[in-house]
Amino acid sequence: MDYAVRGPIPQRAAELKKTGRKIISCNIGNPQALGQPPLSFYRQVLSILEYPELVEIYKGNSLSHCPETAIEYAEYIQGEMDTGLGAYSDSKGHLFIREAVAQFIDRRDNTLERKGVLSDPDNIFLTDGASEGAKNIIELLIKDRMDGIMIPIPQYPLYSATIRRCGGRQVNYYLNEEMGWILTKNELEESYAKAQTENINIRAIVVINPGNPTGAVLNKKCIDEIVSFASEKGIAIIADEVYQENTYDVKFHSFAQSVWECPEVPLFSLHSVSKGFSGECGHRGGYLEIRNMPRLESTNQTMNDVLFRQASVNLCSNTVGQILVYLMVNPPPMDSEAGKLHQTEVNTILSQLRSKASIIKRSFQEMDGVQCFGKVGAMYLFPRLNLLPKQKNDFDYCMALLDSTGLTTVNGGGFGQKEGTHHLRIAFLPPKSILEEVLPKWVDFHRNYINS
Amino acid sequence: MDYAVRGPIPQRAAELKKTGRKIISCNIGNPQALGQPPLSFYRQVLSILEYPELVEIYKGNSLSHCPETAIEYAEYIQGEMDTGLGAYSDSKGHLFIREAVAQFIDRRDNTLERKGVLSDPDNIFLTDGASEGAKNIIELLIKDRMDGIMIPIPQYPLYSATIRRCGGRQVNYYLNEEMGWILTKNELEESYAKAQTENINIRAIVVINPGNPTGAVLNKKCIDEIVSFASEKGIAIIADEVYQENTYDVKFHSFAQSVWECPEVPLFSLHSVSKGFSGECGHRGGYLEIRNMPRLESTNQTMNDVLFRQASVNLCSNTVGQILVYLMVNPPPMDSEAGKLHQTEVNTILSQLRSKASIIKRSFQEMDGVQCFGKVGAMYLFPRLNLLPKQKNDFDYCMALLDSTGLTTVNGGGFGQKEGTHHLRIAFLPPKSILEEVLPKWVDFHRNYINS
Repeated sequence: MDYAVRGPIPQRAAELKKTGRKIISCNIGNPQALGQPPLSFYRQVLSILEYPELVEIYKGNSLSHCPETAIEYAEYIQGEMDTGLGAYSDSKGHLFIREAVAQFIDRRDNTLERKGVLSDPDNIFLTDGASEGAKNIIELLIKDRMDGIMIPIPQYPLYSATIRRCGGRQVNYYLNEEMGWILTKNELEESYAKAQTENINIRAIVVINPGNPTGAVLNKKCIDEIVSFASEKGIAIIADEVYQENTYDVKFHSFAQSVWECPEVPLFSLHSVSKGFSGECGHRGGYLEIRNMPRLESTNQTMNDVLFRQASVNLCSNTVGQILVYLMVNPPPMDSEAGKLHQTEVNTILSQLRSKASIIKRSFQEMDGVQCFGKVGAMYLFPRLNLLPKQKNDFDYCMALLDSTGLTTVNGGGFGQKEGTHHLRIAFLPPKSILEEVLPKWVDFHRNYINS
Repeated sequence: MDYAVRGPIPQRAAELKKTGRKIISCNIGNPQALGQPPLSFYRQVLSILEYPELVEIYKGNSLSHCPETAIEYAEYIQGEMDTGLGAYSDSKGHLFIREAVAQFIDRRDNTLERKGVLSDPDNIFLTDGASEGAKNIIELLIKDRMDGIMIPIPQYPLYSATIRRCGGRQVNYYLNEEMGWILTKNELEESYAKAQTENINIRAIVVINPGNPTGAVLNKKCIDEIVSFASEKGIAIIADEVYQENTYDVKFHSFAQSVWECPEVPLFSLHSVSKGFSGECGHRGGYLEIRNMPRLESTNQTMNDVLFRQASVNLCSNTVGQILVYLMVNPPPMDSEAGKLHQTEVNTILSQLRSKASIIKRSFQEMDGVQCFGKVGAMYLFPRLNLLPKQKNDFDYCMALLDSTGLTTVNGGGFGQKEGTHHLRIAFLPPKSILEEVLPKWVDFHRNYINS
């Protein structure tokens, strides 16, 4: 089980840091570690829930430090939880939060106006980040060593690592780099047919949209094609949609709305408070929504029953992460002072991300043989490195880049790539001042490296 | 995978609650859901870390609502974390917290004075509650369907459920009820020998101390015997010590100090912020300490390497749970105002637990055929129910008790018990006022039930 985003390159960075070297951690999408501030409203509400006496302090002193709306939210949440942050919730998570998630999904997809299928709070599980949900599903889908899961190449290594851990088969399908990392039905068919010749029983296809590490955003037509592919083959879809707020030029389309008319296609979709504009990685909050709930072959149970029992063994996901999910799907109203400030903070974060990506992309133009395909999405750029000296590869490049500049990236091999190609992934998160300092050094490093 | 503490009885209770019935949830050790207040100091520190602007509010207004020590702690933690609660920590958890845990273990076991083996922060993993640590270990130990883990009967169902999920063999050893639920080496030998005749390859023994559901606390001699048993058989020990602060009449002895002189016995010990006096279940904080780190047969790696990669897939445990572990192992100093208040709150919680257990035990004396063996420990009583009417069993009893009184318990079958015996587990957590109201109803119910 190799886990490159926490692998040898970041481990080397940690060693360098101990010696006093300045390290810029772009190996992982960890925005607040690189100075992105938390959203004030989230933290105001959480601080009150942790220490409810604060309400009296605020009220008694008519301080202007906490908006009325945050106090109202905290009091509402406290009432709905009944038991406070220190108690286990239901195994699936607090019901009022699952209801708010369902409403968020219906709003996002315009479900009512479009006469779609409403989201069901009973089929939503609150999880410790999105990773937990993905792992639990894959574990349930792989029952035999010939069970396989289709995953994109390149992919986020959570999927390859979990499939291996469960003893199943990883079935690669390749994204088309030159066309902007898009996904073609042709490629899916070829990948599926090849797996069949190896007697692999494919259970599901993983789609990461917006893409990690590619940043590509799938359009509606492509999503519909994947749904029709899954329907024809009788397989489930695992839709990793944790970057759904991180689209900068194009609109996000959910898988949920594309399966409204395909009740035969089970869909597991994942979201998280770690990405988007929230960036609350350390709090480990997320949710899993299931549509077209499959029954398990061996028993007469639905997957909901089994996931419920699986969640019960963990008792519940952490309650603070649950509350952050609630705040993410239910932001303060725009007609309140808190809501206006919140929206400003959100807009600032997203526009800074966009602009930091552009700054990095511009530097690539100064580097011979570095090509970055596709539009900007998610939090990553995944440029191709041509012209590497013989006997060298992208791992070596990233290690040398780290040693030379302190910039910590992950080599393409950590995500999978077409044989013979080289890439790296960089999270476009550091503040502009740091980028302006390090990017010229990278350009110099690159020139020396390819000529060495 | 059956999970009784979240099973049909609590599910029936949830249904009754929806109809407006008053429910007293004693099916699970969830203290704050039953009115146990959180420790003020913990929450003061957490509220500042969630919303650091609070420091200025406190300082600027010379309010008396937050002690200076809490502000100092928060500022120290903020400095050590560097990145705040919203960022991923290292995969194993923040280093300064793992160092504090190691120091706590060494203080607890008097390691320095007794010239024992110091705890190593590098072998400590911070986890989302203790359950995550237990699951990860069992998953690594079971590599084959003939690999077995010895577990006590009765046991907490996390162990049976996880062994089943991993496809391994559960090997029961029985605790001696009449002698106060103690564990005898004889019984261990018999259980081991029986498993050998079935060609089971035993990898580890689970010991829950203090016991769940039994409350029994093992003495030093018994722990040494288990260590010597593990040494003879060449197996590891999984020590679930989450109730180590919940001893009321006797002293807790850790497994860690009993393996100082047995470097051949791998030890995995678990602790949590959910139990003890903290009761912070919803925050999901805990740690796993490994001693005598085993190497894995198949590769040349230590278990530390593999657990590290496993933890990396989850990125990290939630940071708020991590901070609570820090506060649990590093309480405010006794010479501060905050420290004095903290100690008073801790003492109150523990003495109330003790006294609530006594109140319930006294009621058992009014119930024909109810016997409760052993001393009080952990948060549970596990009385034996004799004299049940024919064709009835403890599941039926607990369901009827719930319907009649609103009291939610778990039947003995949920934990395992000797064939032909009946039990129930009750968490002694409800406030005295509620106990005084419900216990007479239980006594009446019991009389009617056994005579029906």
